[in-house]
Amino acid sequence: MAVYTDVSFEELESFLAGYNIGAPLTFKGIAEGVENSNYYLQTTKGAFILTLYEKRVRTEDLPFFLGLLEHLAARGIHCPLPVRNLAGAQSVILGGRTAALFTFLNGVSLRRPEAGHCAAAGAALAKMHAAGKGFALTRKNALGHDGWDELVQACLPRADEVEPGLADLIATAHREITANWPSGLPSGVIHADLFPDNVLFMGAEVSGLIDFYFACNDAFAYDLAVMLNAWCFEPDVAFNVTKSKSLIAAYAKQRPLTAAEREAIPTLARGSALRFLLTRLYDWLNHDPHALVRPKDPRDYSRRLRFHRKVRGVGEYGL
Amino acid sequence: MAVYTDVSFEELESFLAGYNIGAPLTFKGIAEGVENSNYYLQTTKGAFILTLYEKRVRTEDLPFFLGLLEHLAARGIHCPLPVRNLAGAQSVILGGRTAALFTFLNGVSLRRPEAGHCAAAGAALAKMHAAGKGFALTRKNALGHDGWDELVQACLPRADEVEPGLADLIATAHREITANWPSGLPSGVIHADLFPDNVLFMGAEVSGLIDFYFACNDAFAYDLAVMLNAWCFEPDVAFNVTKSKSLIAAYAKQRPLTAAEREAIPTLARGSALRFLLTRLYDWLNHDPHALVRPKDPRDYSRRLRFHRKVRGVGEYGL
Repeated sequence: MAVYTDVSFEELESFLAGYNIGAPLTFKGIAEGVENSNYYLQTTKGAFILTLYEKRVRTEDLPFFLGLLEHLAARGIHCPLPVRNLAGAQSVILGGRTAALFTFLNGVSLRRPEAGHCAAAGAALAKMHAAGKGFALTRKNALGHDGWDELVQACLPRADEVEPGLADLIATAHREITANWPSGLPSGVIHADLFPDNVLFMGAEVSGLIDFYFACNDAFAYDLAVMLNAWCFEPDVAFNVTKSKSLIAAYAKQRPLTAAEREAIPTLARGSALRFLLTRLYDWLNHDPHALVRPKDPRDYSRRLRFHRKVRGVGEYGL
Repeated sequence: MAVYTDVSFEELESFLAGYNIGAPLTFKGIAEGVENSNYYLQTTKGAFILTLYEKRVRTEDLPFFLGLLEHLAARGIHCPLPVRNLAGAQSVILGGRTAALFTFLNGVSLRRPEAGHCAAAGAALAKMHAAGKGFALTRKNALGHDGWDELVQACLPRADEVEPGLADLIATAHREITANWPSGLPSGVIHADLFPDNVLFMGAEVSGLIDFYFACNDAFAYDLAVMLNAWCFEPDVAFNVTKSKSLIAAYAKQRPLTAAEREAIPTLARGSALRFLLTRLYDWLNHDPHALVRPKDPRDYSRRLRFHRKVRGVGEYGL
């Protein structure tokens, strides 16, 4: 968690001259996300987040991300709304980076969400899926199942350095998941990274969804599977079926799952565990010791994947 | 700039139960300072900074720092006010660290202050010096002139790796400064680190002084000399006498300088340049590549020191 690109107050002042958002009262770098530099900005007219896109977000994807947030916000989803400048642009260049300004959302992200929070977040996901309908742009899931092969090949040779037997787990699971991957499931715009960090709460209510930089077009149920992994395991990686049941039921109350989706859940859960295992493992093996961010332990996800491979039916997820 | 100690919302909630400051609306790690972990907290009752003290601040010094802020705030200085908890304590343990909660100050720090800002900051320093009178606790300047010898010895062997001739500059300047160091100057509580980062502005006015973790008892004029180094050089390390003149005049308008103080300014300016050169050089030479903070370039201060050594009289500082 760090600020990579330093923005002086003087640079901020020139930048703000292009916007109609009042005079600055407070401007502070915040430790939010791992991919970009973020600043909290309070002005006489409100609170904002200024994001500078670092190398991991491709600027050619920004029209999708920024357009999506505008689309969702217009349909009642509490997400950061890109603030257009006086020229109507959603992004500008600042400090050598592409930068965008967003409305600030109150709320806090939870480290240990309870079953009630899982339900609220599941319902919020379903509402987001519905609100994404009609969005004109599309984006392929760069980390979707047909992109895993490259990561698998990059990680296998050194996987056992991290955990004995990990290479075998990855190769076997990847083969099984690919053989069973569902097709033709209801699809649309998904968040693809809705971890508890990315859901803001005010008390028991969801006050915001943030960090849409993995959003893409894919199966809705895959998004739900990501959440099963991110929300329904305890710190010791024990699966909590009460949380999973609450999450899925609250989602399905907004958008009932089809029979094909229900059947696909175990495979999707394995697949999304593999996806996060692979990216964490890759970052772990290729970590620059001078980087300002410490990589996350991939073993949290090898343990999830092992759990899902033992699941014998959707009942184990509370369905 | 980073957050070292991670505080979950759940930990925050337990912590807040000990305070009467309302319910949390926003809680974000901020990239403030280099020594501690800081969080921005907004509640239904106001905005606060939560600070967790990392290893560089000695917890036995906290009663001095926190007591000083309370003392200064009570005398009208805009500085962070430690918020006492329901038990009356100024600090508690959180996430394995000693932590304190402060009122939040609006305002922004400037990267390139103009002469008018230098004047406003100089006046603010003089007011702080006056307000510090009567504070019951004292703290020795751990980085004062009688503590430099140790740093000099630690840095000399490898100084020339950073800049050819640096070891000679340090040894010679240290000898000269020690020989000429003034005694008996008006003294009291000084900030000792009043860089532009630590002064908040709202437009042309100072809205706050922050980061008192080097505060100690020493000569007032030494504090002014720190500011000459921190505020009156351009990015290319050219000395700006207009800024220096503005800063000193505005300070002296609040508290006239004695003849001995005026005469001592060149030596104090050399001394404070040496102090920051030594600590930056030490951090540069002993930098842990895994640390989340990148060290500052010590050469900014060797160049300042070289400037001050050529000064032939206080007129060159605009006195």
